[in-house]
Amino acid sequence: MKIKDGLMTAVFAGTLAATTNAHAADALPSWNEGQAKQSVVAFVERVTSQGSPDFVPESERIATFDNDGTLWSEEPIYFQLAFALDRVKALAPQHPEWKDKEPFSSLLRGDLKAALAGGKPAVFEIMVATHAGMTSEEFAGVVHTWIATAKHPKTGRLYSEMAYQPMLELLAYLRANGFKTFIVSGGGIEFMRVFAEEVYGIPPEQVIGSSGRLKFEIRDGKPVLVKLPEVDFIDNEADKPVAIQKHIGRRPIAAFGNSDGDLQMLQWTTAASGARFGLIVHHTDAEREWAYDRQSSIGLLDKALDEAEANGWTVVDMKDDWNTIFPNLHKVEPKVEP
Amino acid sequence: MKIKDGLMTAVFAGTLAATTNAHAADALPSWNEGQAKQSVVAFVERVTSQGSPDFVPESERIATFDNDGTLWSEEPIYFQLAFALDRVKALAPQHPEWKDKEPFSSLLRGDLKAALAGGKPAVFEIMVATHAGMTSEEFAGVVHTWIATAKHPKTGRLYSEMAYQPMLELLAYLRANGFKTFIVSGGGIEFMRVFAEEVYGIPPEQVIGSSGRLKFEIRDGKPVLVKLPEVDFIDNEADKPVAIQKHIGRRPIAAFGNSDGDLQMLQWTTAASGARFGLIVHHTDAEREWAYDRQSSIGLLDKALDEAEANGWTVVDMKDDWNTIFPNLHKVEPKVEP
Repeated sequence: MKIKDGLMTAVFAGTLAATTNAHAADALPSWNEGQAKQSVVAFVERVTSQGSPDFVPESERIATFDNDGTLWSEEPIYFQLAFALDRVKALAPQHPEWKDKEPFSSLLRGDLKAALAGGKPAVFEIMVATHAGMTSEEFAGVVHTWIATAKHPKTGRLYSEMAYQPMLELLAYLRANGFKTFIVSGGGIEFMRVFAEEVYGIPPEQVIGSSGRLKFEIRDGKPVLVKLPEVDFIDNEADKPVAIQKHIGRRPIAAFGNSDGDLQMLQWTTAASGARFGLIVHHTDAEREWAYDRQSSIGLLDKALDEAEANGWTVVDMKDDWNTIFPNLHKVEPKVEP
Repeated sequence: MKIKDGLMTAVFAGTLAATTNAHAADALPSWNEGQAKQSVVAFVERVTSQGSPDFVPESERIATFDNDGTLWSEEPIYFQLAFALDRVKALAPQHPEWKDKEPFSSLLRGDLKAALAGGKPAVFEIMVATHAGMTSEEFAGVVHTWIATAKHPKTGRLYSEMAYQPMLELLAYLRANGFKTFIVSGGGIEFMRVFAEEVYGIPPEQVIGSSGRLKFEIRDGKPVLVKLPEVDFIDNEADKPVAIQKHIGRRPIAAFGNSDGDLQMLQWTTAASGARFGLIVHHTDAEREWAYDRQSSIGLLDKALDEAEANGWTVVDMKDDWNTIFPNLHKVEPKVEP
């Protein structure tokens, strides 16, 4: 299941080569020298140095990452919502009734704002129509096709090419140092699992997210898992530590987020004894990415930003701390002046 | 956190030495030569031989194991119930009201049958009293103390010494061949995780089981996860494949069980294309362990036994197929005739 023409393979190969010496400082070439990079490297060296009082055995080197806004972008709308909207369009011919039914009619007219004016129930209707009523395997196939082809409206990149290069390097650096990396995201668990291994190097069993209920059935003599139109778990805020306990069963020693939805995960991770690391990606780069925090409807970062200082969490200033945002694509079409 | 005097360390060291050559037939010394052993070895060789049409990449070598009756004994009562009963006794001084309250009063008089006459609600009361109302970390501490000291009424062994030696060898053999081994059990997820790594070599994040609801709270300025007196998920029968999808996100290629509670896990695992392996441990050895199947109140094995033949699942006859049941203890006290 290859998504992108060897792009990520090349990115990872480069990163892995750079981390053959797991402590090499150039494992993070997209991070500018400065406090953020130093704090990451210092933490990793503390917990991996044999004989250090803060040494942590490999089995306990658990690191958890939020996804939207932490590992890839989340503007102008969550990418999973973009997927859902594309699915509504694709499914519309089979649903003539949607022409007269909100939120679908507004969506199909291209009026996203009107469609989402219905709030959570409207979003739920869209999610049910696009994420339920099929088997888990059918859903994975649909997501796979989308992620391999759909492009972001602003950058023209595949969505998976909007993972942050510095975070890809960080994931690889941690793994090269014996960490097990997990995603703990409000996004859909079955959505993310389709591409997390190829894009982030994180296998399905290390992806944790929100989920709908599943039902085991025998259809035509074959067992299937059917996606029901019911919410099972929303993996956000105070339920992120709950999800970590359910899925991982031990407390991470490092956590990475970007919004108030990650606050409790950062608290849970960093409040215990021993060396602990918390990091917040602060979106400060309106030119290369987006700039938003305390007032944003997506990725609201307010309380967690206040708590960062009190708790000694590292805050990444995307503009200053990262010299690259997205992976460099190998084939860049030259722009031809008309 | 060492449970047992280096016993399991010795067991594993022996097994690992035997599997340095991952294909060595003597990786399973407690298995008698015969159909069951041959089928396991043949399957592992099919999926791990480069160039074989049935070759499976390591990331997809997922094997799931039931726990009670598959990895350790479950008679005369589930070991987790034995833990709960011991806890009722330990907690009784703090609960004078239990003297007049069922099921506790019968339990404290030593009348298990009367206590369990209340059926599921009685069991639920016992589980709530012993498994909820504390933090996850407090509970883990209580289980750890119990598993390190409590002894089985019939064998006098620590409960963890009633893991099946042939299955310990099988787990190590699969891992030596690139498999990732998971527990998928009706037992409590937070109960099993305390000892699964030391006893089975299975880390907490690869243990799946039944669970109560958890709640994140800040207590005295510190975050905790509190175990609520509410069922979250019962990991049995048709919900085993659901749990597999939730936690692992891909279909196993091998599954191991011993009862009708494992039927759907075996169906889900073996119904897909490619090389697949299903195995049922049939309790046939009344002398060295216990003998029970179609009529048993614990570990009922009826439908799954019928389906085994139709589906080509391997059935282990414990009496004939295993030359050892439990690990040999290093220190065996000589019996002195009076």
